[in-house]
Amino acid sequence: MKRSIFFISDGTGITAETLGHSLLSQFEDVEFEELTMPYVDTVEKAWSTVHQINQLAEASSTRPIIIDTIVNKDIRDVIAKANGFMLDVFETFVGKLGAELCSKPVNTVGKSHSIINNETYNVRIEAVHFALDNDDGARTHHYDRADIILTGVSRSGKTPTSLYMALQFGVHVGNYPLTEDDFDDLRLPAALKEHKKKLFGLIIDADRLSAIRNERKANSKYASIQQCEMETRAVEALFNKENIPYINTTQLSIEEISTRILAIAGIKRRLV
Amino acid sequence: MKRSIFFISDGTGITAETLGHSLLSQFEDVEFEELTMPYVDTVEKAWSTVHQINQLAEASSTRPIIIDTIVNKDIRDVIAKANGFMLDVFETFVGKLGAELCSKPVNTVGKSHSIINNETYNVRIEAVHFALDNDDGARTHHYDRADIILTGVSRSGKTPTSLYMALQFGVHVGNYPLTEDDFDDLRLPAALKEHKKKLFGLIIDADRLSAIRNERKANSKYASIQQCEMETRAVEALFNKENIPYINTTQLSIEEISTRILAIAGIKRRLV
Repeated sequence: MKRSIFFISDGTGITAETLGHSLLSQFEDVEFEELTMPYVDTVEKAWSTVHQINQLAEASSTRPIIIDTIVNKDIRDVIAKANGFMLDVFETFVGKLGAELCSKPVNTVGKSHSIINNETYNVRIEAVHFALDNDDGARTHHYDRADIILTGVSRSGKTPTSLYMALQFGVHVGNYPLTEDDFDDLRLPAALKEHKKKLFGLIIDADRLSAIRNERKANSKYASIQQCEMETRAVEALFNKENIPYINTTQLSIEEISTRILAIAGIKRRLV
Repeated sequence: MKRSIFFISDGTGITAETLGHSLLSQFEDVEFEELTMPYVDTVEKAWSTVHQINQLAEASSTRPIIIDTIVNKDIRDVIAKANGFMLDVFETFVGKLGAELCSKPVNTVGKSHSIINNETYNVRIEAVHFALDNDDGARTHHYDRADIILTGVSRSGKTPTSLYMALQFGVHVGNYPLTEDDFDDLRLPAALKEHKKKLFGLIIDADRLSAIRNERKANSKYASIQQCEMETRAVEALFNKENIPYINTTQLSIEEISTRILAIAGIKRRLV
């Protein structure tokens, strides 16, 4: 039987959700039914939420779990009346942090993801546009402005990783696909040779690659296990030959791929 | 004088950082120097981190602050020896949650952002590719598969929002630019009329739009305040005339834009 869990916030809900997922992942023998409730920013909405939680509690043999990041005390006190098990982030941490800093919290909601200044927004937009403009080897003459250039076979995760790194860290990521033409001689394409120090490779297990490619072009040569095995062997050989750092993305999420690349390549983030 | 703060994790560091930012934003009169330290996953690395923290502590009149999400007790115990003020997430919450669930934590690092199953990764990749394939009105014949279609003037935030929503929520977002041709008659383009129920508008203040456009094409007619004022007035009139829901993105981060659209439009997330 699934255990209900609510991530409740007076803002976007992203902090409550991220923290919640992190905690839940520690309990593998429990199945959860998750619900994120952002913008619970009035007492009225809080009561409506309590009602929803209590209905679930009544219909179930176990009480719902609540993880909240609500800043406003009045709203938080209402949520606390729900028939649920509540883990509150604000009261737990902000008090202690405030004492250490000898500073009083502003108690204003949702500031974490606000534009503290337009600069942050500009950095991210610029990075996203760089990633898009330099996606899939379409253009290579801006590589001098890239922080890093991802390379690997088609569907090894280059584009989603570039975009995630742009949005999350503001870094300028180009990406370039390696194809059969590059494997014949086991040589880097000319456009990449020039920027070899910025290269980072993504490899992926052949069976996983085949499954992903089949989603895109079912039953094609492109997606066949033979083609995938050939490409994955060749690209790894090429990276080894050219001393290009690489990681295997097979078991990794986009977050893990991105943060590992950042850590290994030692790239400086443009956003903290 | 800036206060040093370390976000320490044995995984990607994203949870520690997200929570950290949320807490820090409550203290507006304090300036912070932030450092995220992911993959502190051995006792050796932990000691190296402690050394780094202690060096900072010695050079400063205030001790560094540490927010950590470390799962492994041995590593956590080492970090606790640092000369810093430590807020530990795991011990604070996991114990209480485990007692409520009558379940023992697995104490395995970094599972929050792991691929619980390949399905999550596939959903995100598919959503990213949908956003890219349907970006900027290039193609409109897949709009039947869109969960939502963002529209607004050039540089109102459509593309970054589409990509963020794809990566974070797995939703299928198309986007279509409104231009002067659409303003003359104050009519929706034909491609959008057909899918009116899926439309969501983004508007932005003229001076902010002009600043953003100047980053892209400095001193152009496109970026001039007159052009921006004309476009922003017209697009808002069009949205009102056609009863299209919209939000003003001027003061919002990409997270805020995305989560508000989701909440207002009532779109179902494909990823929890």
